[in-house]
Amino acid sequence: MHCFKSLENLKSAYIERIHQVSDERRSGKKSVGTFCLFVPDEIIFAAGADRMILCGGKNDTISIAEQYLPRNICPLVKSSFGSIVNDGCSGVKSCSHFSMVDMIVAENTCDSKKKMYELLDNYVPTYVIDLPQRPDTPEALKYFVTELDKFRDAMEQLTGNKVTNERLRQEIISSNETRKLLHSLYELRKRDPSPISGVDMLKILQKQYFLSPGELKEHLRMLISEVESVEPEGAHRPRIMISGCPMPGGNTKVPEIIEDKGGVIVVEESCTGTRSFWDMVDEDKEPMLALAERYIEIPCSCMSPNDRRIDNILELARDFKVDGVVYYTLQFCHGYNIEKYKVQQALKKAGIPMLFVETDYSNSDVEQIGLRVDAFMEMLS
Amino acid sequence: MHCFKSLENLKSAYIERIHQVSDERRSGKKSVGTFCLFVPDEIIFAAGADRMILCGGKNDTISIAEQYLPRNICPLVKSSFGSIVNDGCSGVKSCSHFSMVDMIVAENTCDSKKKMYELLDNYVPTYVIDLPQRPDTPEALKYFVTELDKFRDAMEQLTGNKVTNERLRQEIISSNETRKLLHSLYELRKRDPSPISGVDMLKILQKQYFLSPGELKEHLRMLISEVESVEPEGAHRPRIMISGCPMPGGNTKVPEIIEDKGGVIVVEESCTGTRSFWDMVDEDKEPMLALAERYIEIPCSCMSPNDRRIDNILELARDFKVDGVVYYTLQFCHGYNIEKYKVQQALKKAGIPMLFVETDYSNSDVEQIGLRVDAFMEMLS
Ligand code: SF4
Ligand code: SF4
Ligand code: SF4
Ligand code: SF4
Repeated sequence: MHCFKSLENLKSAYIERIHQVSDERRSGKKSVGTFCLFVPDEIIFAAGADRMILCGGKNDTISIAEQYLPRNICPLVKSSFGSIVNDGCSGVKSCSHFSMVDMIVAENTCDSKKKMYELLDNYVPTYVIDLPQRPDTPEALKYFVTELDKFRDAMEQLTGNKVTNERLRQEIISSNETRKLLHSLYELRKRDPSPISGVDMLKILQKQYFLSPGELKEHLRMLISEVESVEPEGAHRPRIMISGCPMPGGNTKVPEIIEDKGGVIVVEESCTGTRSFWDMVDEDKEPMLALAERYIEIPCSCMSPNDRRIDNILELARDFKVDGVVYYTLQFCHGYNIEKYKVQQALKKAGIPMLFVETDYSNSDVEQIGLRVDAFMEMLS
Repeated sequence: MHCFKSLENLKSAYIERIHQVSDERRSGKKSVGTFCLFVPDEIIFAAGADRMILCGGKNDTISIAEQYLPRNICPLVKSSFGSIVNDGCSGVKSCSHFSMVDMIVAENTCDSKKKMYELLDNYVPTYVIDLPQRPDTPEALKYFVTELDKFRDAMEQLTGNKVTNERLRQEIISSNETRKLLHSLYELRKRDPSPISGVDMLKILQKQYFLSPGELKEHLRMLISEVESVEPEGAHRPRIMISGCPMPGGNTKVPEIIEDKGGVIVVEESCTGTRSFWDMVDEDKEPMLALAERYIEIPCSCMSPNDRRIDNILELARDFKVDGVVYYTLQFCHGYNIEKYKVQQALKKAGIPMLFVETDYSNSDVEQIGLRVDAFMEMLS
């Protein structure tokens, strides 16, 4: 597929960002680490702090984590924990963002993260936002608003800056701009053939959590104008939606297999995909309420009921003219693994084929997944 | 060990109870099924309904569940789901309590149960109480109170009976009586040698969720007077605490191995153990608040922070003169598996040896667990 210059530029952006944050920290700016979409960026940025996501996508820190955590939990949790413990200790020190945070902002979502955070607090001060587990009652919303209010206080205390409603409003507008840019980029993927590969797209989706909001917008604008000008080329390839668990930086295994085998990923229903930017925050409402309303509705499997996710999948499949869905889960992620049943039923009813891939960060199953994806593509062609 | 007549009587109690509930239902009494200690019995009984626990402890319904649920989730969830689907369908119909409920009262605790409940709703109307995931803030308590208020309304609607504060107070007093009887029974287990085996004890702990409150109290009173009169006999055997996941009816595998290998279980830190009765409900407070305060503090691993559990384990170990702890988990129960690390650290500091057993409901690992328990007992002797 087409090779985009703005994606090439992204390669050096990570290192530049590390230096930037490290300089800023020397001059007193605070930096927090997050693991999840349920933590509103707007509050962090409004407090004048930086934000880096700490979700691990690499296999090599998992063995470190397994000294503390069970082997049979999801690789994302193990990889993240291993990276932080590793960076904080005297071991294999690497130049990475994992040790560059003054505070971790955690959230009670899935069992594994919830319990991992308790251990993490031994290494980095960890603030936990409690999340109601239902998205659809006024009482849950109210509880979430009070939790976000407390979080705002915690950010004020960390940074010494006041988080005014005015600052929040500015950050809401800024984040909505980013969301709109991502929507524009996704809009281009509705073309047939899609002008950008899913692997390329994933790389920018992964980077969105590292770059500063300003840099991200700049990269997105450049990319959009490049992608817009691409001439449609080549034969029809099966248009694939990926749906399920996030794919943090370092993990592009399954998308690579899918596109190697002749498919093209046109949409990702995941936290490294639509879930991160789909819904806007209402700019006209009281900002804390507007944030709570938008964030509580993220259709993550940790919420129950989560029928909104099913509706969203069907809508995306239609709008992006999807030929088939790869339901992707990380091993031992009970939430997305159990929710597979409902998604499968809904897709069956809609006549959309689905392939289920449950995997980890190792390479041991690459060949086997390749064979299954191959057969799936053949069926879709 | 001693053979208690009141335990023999328990054997027929289950069948009698099935008939009793079935008669009562014919005359209009409602019956609800629960899965978890976080659902306050008092509210159910105050509405004039019956309550049966639906947690499955048997292996044979797991394969039915695996047609809907992933294989690698905890056997308790699979067994329960399989039993309900089986009883509700035309399959291997058995005379059991799983099909005798008008409503399921679920709670958002662990990932697997939370998502399983969504599927269960296709078979039995399922009401879900949302649970805050922290036990220690005024905001969480407030949210839980509103959730319990809604649950009270739902019970009123189901039964057509008003749940007055007066009725609630009566049920609180009644449940506290049961709790005190269980405390008395546990008090006797502090004797050395313990007058009752852990396997016997577990059988009555499992039955507590089936019997009517009146029957349970009667059985407990008989058992206490029998156990009180047992003469201490035999040499010292290693005094064991079991700590971890629940062991629902049908599952006595690990306790049997422990006592076969020469240990005696003197206390269970689990939901089929101390967690079910340890704390009283304040009889003098406004009843809904008193219930919320008591129930939110149950030291289950689904809560974070859960340091109360660690403190409780150390206190029990001291009071029951425990020689060693068997940390028991069901496979793929992330909460208790991850929390093991903290428990292990605390026990190490207190100088109490711990053996970790992660298992399922099958018999395939009985021999291997036997060897490990054997070595543990030898070390403790
Ligand atoms: S999948 Fe759920 S828990 Fe994980 S990052 Fe996304 S929103 Fe958070
Ligand atoms: S992939 Fe699943 S188990 Fe892993 S952190 Fe995300 S929600 Fe939790
Ligand atoms: S272990 Fe926790 S979730 Fe399970 S029954 Fe006990 S309190 Fe409920
Ligand atoms: S044993 Fe663990 S995974 Fe299973 S139902 Fe209880 S808390 Fe959930």
